[in-house]
Amino acid sequence: MNTKPIRILGIDPGFGRLGYGIIEQKSGDWVALDYGCIETSPKNTFVERILQIHNELKEIIAKYKPTRAGVEELFFYKNVTTAVQVGQARGVVLLTLSQAKIPIDEFTPLEVKQAITGYGRAEKGQIQTMVAMILKLKNKKIQDDAADALAVAITVAHMSKIGRLS
Amino acid sequence: MNTKPIRILGIDPGFGRLGYGIIEQKSGDWVALDYGCIETSPKNTFVERILQIHNELKEIIAKYKPTRAGVEELFFYKNVTTAVQVGQARGVVLLTLSQAKIPIDEFTPLEVKQAITGYGRAEKGQIQTMVAMILKLKNKKIQDDAADALAVAITVAHMSKIGRLS
Repeated sequence: MNTKPIRILGIDPGFGRLGYGIIEQKSGDWVALDYGCIETSPKNTFVERILQIHNELKEIIAKYKPTRAGVEELFFYKNVTTAVQVGQARGVVLLTLSQAKIPIDEFTPLEVKQAITGYGRAEKGQIQTMVAMILKLKNKKIQDDAADALAVAITVAHMSKIGRLS
Repeated sequence: MNTKPIRILGIDPGFGRLGYGIIEQKSGDWVALDYGCIETSPKNTFVERILQIHNELKEIIAKYKPTRAGVEELFFYKNVTTAVQVGQARGVVLLTLSQAKIPIDEFTPLEVKQAITGYGRAEKGQIQTMVAMILKLKNKKIQDDAADALAVAITVAHMSKIGRLS
């Protein structure tokens, strides 16, 4: 078979730190091709930080050419100022992905947790451990935001499998 | 003199409806070149709406080539969900402006009100009337969001005059 491999980019939106993770199916297993964080400095202006998120994300897309993407929805912010700030970063993420014509799925934190649980038992705070286990990562010291992004990518994979996504 | 005219694009960010207004100084007076609203339908997907805001704003920038822009800051949202949604639209606006290399100034609603008051007396709810008066608009039935956007553009003009902006 010569099917184009499904390569998924998961994103945990943030303004100071945005997590990303790219997974691909190889011989039936999902493996991580890359993961990490885009970090913006409060020393830069708001607009410089917005532009940095856009540019770095564009580079990641150009390098890995994901066939679909998952972006976590925003919930439970302590205050409206934080919600607005993270919202602005998320808007930039959605625009960057749609300019690259990548189909986007959005999931609530609960949906992500349930998808991860579908692969075993996830307790509170165990996303990191579960992600490392599912993707057979040797490096188990992943930053939280990168682990969350990989969890979102796994959710896209899971939802495709159970047929919720086309 | 052959100075390049200062042309200011003001924006009142929103997701369902985003106000814009373009003003230019002519023989000492500020006049409105255009104003209106970008409206997105809830029938479309979130991503389609984000992309529509980006594309329509890009068209406005290409048509009027503003030399600087003002964007109102977000305050006083009733709930976090609305704050996130408008935040996302605002992120798209800031990215679109910075991709076009237009210098951006940001103002709180209070700063906008004070700038408008600097031209006379503005009472609550009178932004529309004041904007029409300052710009000598014949059509006084401007949509609220378009009037707010023109008020932001006037604020940029005002701040430049008093030297707060370079």
